[in-house]
Amino acid sequence: MMQYFPTDPVQLTEDRTAIKAIDQRALPNAECFLRLRNAAAVAEAIRTLAVRGAPCIGICAAYGVYIAALAHLREEKTAFLAHLDADAAVISAARPTAVNLSWAVNRMMECKARHIAETPQEIAEALCTEAETIHQEDIAMCRQIAENGLKLLPDGSRVITHCNAGALATSRYGTGLGPLLLGAERGMTFHAFVDETRPLLQGARLTAYELHRAGIDTTLMCDNMASYLMAQGNIQACMVGCDRVAANGDTANKIGTSGLAVLAHHYGVPFYVFCPSPTIDRRCKTGADIRIEQRDGAEITTLHFAKPIAPAGIHCLNPAFDVTPASLITAIITEHGIMRPPFAF
Amino acid sequence: MMQYFPTDPVQLTEDRTAIKAIDQRALPNAECFLRLRNAAAVAEAIRTLAVRGAPCIGICAAYGVYIAALAHLREEKTAFLAHLDADAAVISAARPTAVNLSWAVNRMMECKARHIAETPQEIAEALCTEAETIHQEDIAMCRQIAENGLKLLPDGSRVITHCNAGALATSRYGTGLGPLLLGAERGMTFHAFVDETRPLLQGARLTAYELHRAGIDTTLMCDNMASYLMAQGNIQACMVGCDRVAANGDTANKIGTSGLAVLAHHYGVPFYVFCPSPTIDRRCKTGADIRIEQRDGAEITTLHFAKPIAPAGIHCLNPAFDVTPASLITAIITEHGIMRPPFAF
Repeated sequence: MMQYFPTDPVQLTEDRTAIKAIDQRALPNAECFLRLRNAAAVAEAIRTLAVRGAPCIGICAAYGVYIAALAHLREEKTAFLAHLDADAAVISAARPTAVNLSWAVNRMMECKARHIAETPQEIAEALCTEAETIHQEDIAMCRQIAENGLKLLPDGSRVITHCNAGALATSRYGTGLGPLLLGAERGMTFHAFVDETRPLLQGARLTAYELHRAGIDTTLMCDNMASYLMAQGNIQACMVGCDRVAANGDTANKIGTSGLAVLAHHYGVPFYVFCPSPTIDRRCKTGADIRIEQRDGAEITTLHFAKPIAPAGIHCLNPAFDVTPASLITAIITEHGIMRPPFAF
Repeated sequence: MMQYFPTDPVQLTEDRTAIKAIDQRALPNAECFLRLRNAAAVAEAIRTLAVRGAPCIGICAAYGVYIAALAHLREEKTAFLAHLDADAAVISAARPTAVNLSWAVNRMMECKARHIAETPQEIAEALCTEAETIHQEDIAMCRQIAENGLKLLPDGSRVITHCNAGALATSRYGTGLGPLLLGAERGMTFHAFVDETRPLLQGARLTAYELHRAGIDTTLMCDNMASYLMAQGNIQACMVGCDRVAANGDTANKIGTSGLAVLAHHYGVPFYVFCPSPTIDRRCKTGADIRIEQRDGAEITTLHFAKPIAPAGIHCLNPAFDVTPASLITAIITEHGIMRPPFAF
């Protein structure tokens, strides 16, 4: 049996006084763990992408509300409740696009409301149980998503992934990578082509790392190479996760996902979105209702991560050029003028 | 009048004994110039992308054949001719995809053939004149391409570029960037969105640098953001250069160009290829006949260039996600099963 990422990226410490989270900014060069002891630290970890991936953010936020309750446990009840609400708001505001964040915080606040008559200690215990339930539900959902998705993937499939929708983004099997990880456990073979996913390189750093460790044949490529690859044929699917899905199915996911979908459509490759139900936001009628986070341009102009940016030994696809079919060219301009298709030089 | 890149990227030194070439690997952090004094150095500069851009490679190769002749000038004529042929072959083999390289070397060899009865000194002089003619012809072609292309661009156009098809890739106006640079000289205003162009970041390092210096409103983005940008509308054109154009118009250009063309087609944005006639290779019937260079995966997994990778003060577009319309999604898989469009959650 293959070994995928061996531990959930976010969990409580054994004494249940802090969140232990793998620092995803340090991967694949180092496996560092953060101890998050209050709401500000939780929000900071989410904002800086130390903790990332929509379901994982939700789990971290749920534990975060519990940790916030712990931090205020010695206060008198009115202050405890006021500070808990304030801390929940801090966590909820860490990032705007993934719905799992506000969904998890809201669910924790509903739990608090159900226990409002109890002592701060009892409320904290109820919150701990609720967060652990959210975590366990996520594990079960991911497992089932992987089972369902595996029906779409014949043994030997060659697939393209974008960003990271594996164990690091969720718990255990992940969403978009779940079918690959589950299938590999069962002895199936796949070849995964991994978009590096600029600017923060989640594909290169996290997906390549996870799939490589799970023994799956993995090739890293730049985001702009998918068209080249699909044009050669023999790609059976694109597989991605999602951060928020509108009622009509419009899906927000990592920058570059829509471009990959356009390519898949053009080349006749099935495009699969893997989505736990908490990621569906019925309050958004369409994608136009989804707020897209704009991040600092310095993420593009400078690289924050130490070299190397991908696991040692990973394969790469690295063609220096590609061929644009004439049918896609509106005009070719030479010193002799403007030519339009059909071209015949 | 705006000042674009102030000097041709490849030229002879004043005493005509070496090639002076700006080292494009060092941009935008440093403006270093190489002195190339023999064929091996010319081939190395082209292979490592110190000299790059199809037309620029052609000019460098032409001067390279002349420089090779100089290096063998004191040999007796049979040895001189044999070494010149061998050196020309070394230069011609530096990179496979851009046709300008073999085109320029072949033209220089035809020049040599016309002067085969003369002394090595006279042959070298003829080669120098031929290389300078190739260079001057390129300047004139680029200028005319820019004029022609400008007819396609209304004042105020917002355009997307990929890789670098500016002065650094050619001489003076460039190809794909020519209309922008020429229009800016005439007081027109454009907004250029520049694909960073992974893995070697020619867009971030070179195109952003050139356009920024020319006073053109420039926004750098990752390659995977073009779909997001086009989906918002208000993009008037995509503008790219090319490395080899087949007889049917199939066009080889920097990796990612075909993907951008698919997106442009999907979003109804005109897609323009800017092409000096030496870049057309009638011996290639279609793109299937064009050999695509595969480069070292280390270019993806590690970054060779010092930080920062873009000019100071350049604007960036940096959305962290995008929205994939439901119409592009083949299925959404949740723990409840596999859903296909039309979605109605």
